[in-house]
Amino acid sequence: MINKQIRLASRPSGWVTVDNFETTEEEVAEPADGQVLVRNIFMSVDPYMRGRMNDVKSYVPPFGIGDVLQASVVGQVVASEFSVYEEGDYVMGMLGWENYSLCDGRQLRKLTPGTEPLSWHLGILGMPGMTAYVGLMKIAEANTGETVFVSAASGAVGSVVGQLAKIHGCRVTGCAGSDDKVASLTEEFGYDAAFNYRASEALHQSIREICPDGINVSFENVGGDIFEAVLWNMHDYGRVALCGMIAHYNDEEPQPGPRGMMLIVGRRLTIRGFIVTDHPDACEEYIAKAVGWIKEGKLKYRETVAEGIENAPGAFIDMLKGKNTGKQIVQLAEA
Amino acid sequence: MINKQIRLASRPSGWVTVDNFETTEEEVAEPADGQVLVRNIFMSVDPYMRGRMNDVKSYVPPFGIGDVLQASVVGQVVASEFSVYEEGDYVMGMLGWENYSLCDGRQLRKLTPGTEPLSWHLGILGMPGMTAYVGLMKIAEANTGETVFVSAASGAVGSVVGQLAKIHGCRVTGCAGSDDKVASLTEEFGYDAAFNYRASEALHQSIREICPDGINVSFENVGGDIFEAVLWNMHDYGRVALCGMIAHYNDEEPQPGPRGMMLIVGRRLTIRGFIVTDHPDACEEYIAKAVGWIKEGKLKYRETVAEGIENAPGAFIDMLKGKNTGKQIVQLAEA
Repeated sequence: MINKQIRLASRPSGWVTVDNFETTEEEVAEPADGQVLVRNIFMSVDPYMRGRMNDVKSYVPPFGIGDVLQASVVGQVVASEFSVYEEGDYVMGMLGWENYSLCDGRQLRKLTPGTEPLSWHLGILGMPGMTAYVGLMKIAEANTGETVFVSAASGAVGSVVGQLAKIHGCRVTGCAGSDDKVASLTEEFGYDAAFNYRASEALHQSIREICPDGINVSFENVGGDIFEAVLWNMHDYGRVALCGMIAHYNDEEPQPGPRGMMLIVGRRLTIRGFIVTDHPDACEEYIAKAVGWIKEGKLKYRETVAEGIENAPGAFIDMLKGKNTGKQIVQLAEA
Repeated sequence: MINKQIRLASRPSGWVTVDNFETTEEEVAEPADGQVLVRNIFMSVDPYMRGRMNDVKSYVPPFGIGDVLQASVVGQVVASEFSVYEEGDYVMGMLGWENYSLCDGRQLRKLTPGTEPLSWHLGILGMPGMTAYVGLMKIAEANTGETVFVSAASGAVGSVVGQLAKIHGCRVTGCAGSDDKVASLTEEFGYDAAFNYRASEALHQSIREICPDGINVSFENVGGDIFEAVLWNMHDYGRVALCGMIAHYNDEEPQPGPRGMMLIVGRRLTIRGFIVTDHPDACEEYIAKAVGWIKEGKLKYRETVAEGIENAPGAFIDMLKGKNTGKQIVQLAEA
């Protein structure tokens, strides 16, 4: 069997392009003792991967030039030399941008497919869903009756944040990058109010219109001008869960932070960064609850699906540019 | 009796100058029912007053043009029509930049002078000391063995922060604006290491030299380049108690924040602004402990004293420029 793989050809300076990737092929090897061969069905492309393309030490190590890129993958066991798994098992793990992954069995987690589509384990029942829960409930400690603002509200994480906030009795607001996305926020995901930031002439004013009493909790995934406008609209004692800053991932140099940092003092704000993997207990807590909320129809989910490993780089770039609605994934094979 | 008073003549744009103040004189009035007449002995000049000179709503209202400026004052009762106080009592309160203040008796707090100088109630036993304690212990939650960095380390607040951190078993570092100040930090206030930020060619590097393992707790009172350099040196899970940003108080426009805000995510940092008056219980707790620490010689204190109400504007401007060591006060009359 031939394995098609996507490798990092060069480090991007500024925006990622398809030239930063190369596609290679090699014969699939047999698993050695302790190894499992997985046929990859769905893979995830996520904003944090952009950081790993730079040669910078961070909370995850950088990708190496020439190496197969890594992603969260859902797949099926083809052959196993690890006692926990047998042929046909559905599994997930941090595997490669490739059709088949040969890995240490300890890297995998078994999935017991229920009524939900397999791909959901990369989104609402995976890292994006858990990130939404940890940031909103554990980092920002959102309370019933508070106003929540979500900056990338229609993304894989943001669409879950809004729904979780609604379930917890908050007033939910946010912004997204197109009129269609904004419509989906209020019509589908239960947001109380939202606006299209690309059509806003003054972000500060657009936020004030939908949050006239200020923001108690901000779930921040964008950075840049939006973060600055959020800061100026925060209510006294407000909390910002800082999850990411997609506006900056393609910066060639670190850019200045928001103007008005003194507001953090005057309004007694808390800005707190977090990484979902630091909070395994909260993640388990979330998954247990999320399954119930999905069944009750309280938690909805949307995906944008690209087809084929060769389209993974394009799907990743589109996601960084905000072309997706909900979770961007790549389907590599039939389930 | 003639009362000399300092009023706000005009709002500064950029740096405050003596032209922003005017000195006026008026006859002292007799207290009406419920009022107390105080002979002011010491007054405090503090960084936050700069913010009140702008016409901007904040956690304290702006000073009005033509109004007598306000300050924390320690004085002695001259005449009282309020049952709690009688002639000769020592009191403190938020009174005026003036030789005599006629005020509502409810604005005052009685002082029982002990062995400590009266003026200490404006500093180590007043708001600056309480600010140090609240920020270090309640906001940043400093723990034994952690490395603490204090950006304005020899100021009224910073010199107390360092000593409190030492009392609580932390490694204490910081920076100040002259070699003399730096010497006082390590020789007098028990800092483990410090540097002169005006002599530093690369703040980031200077901090790294004295905090090779990173900063766990930063007590931030400066902002600007120093705050940015602190951010780049924070350890994972570090906390920044954001108390003020004196580097920005004379900005004509809000300036950009530090570069590298993504570090807040990657290193899971918490940046939290606070106002000491939100924490009355912690303030009481501090005063009770501080008196003991002073007696034991664990908590030392330095003042820079200007003489006479007419020199209050100059003392205020000097303090904003960092010419003081320890608490800047103005002596208005003999104790």
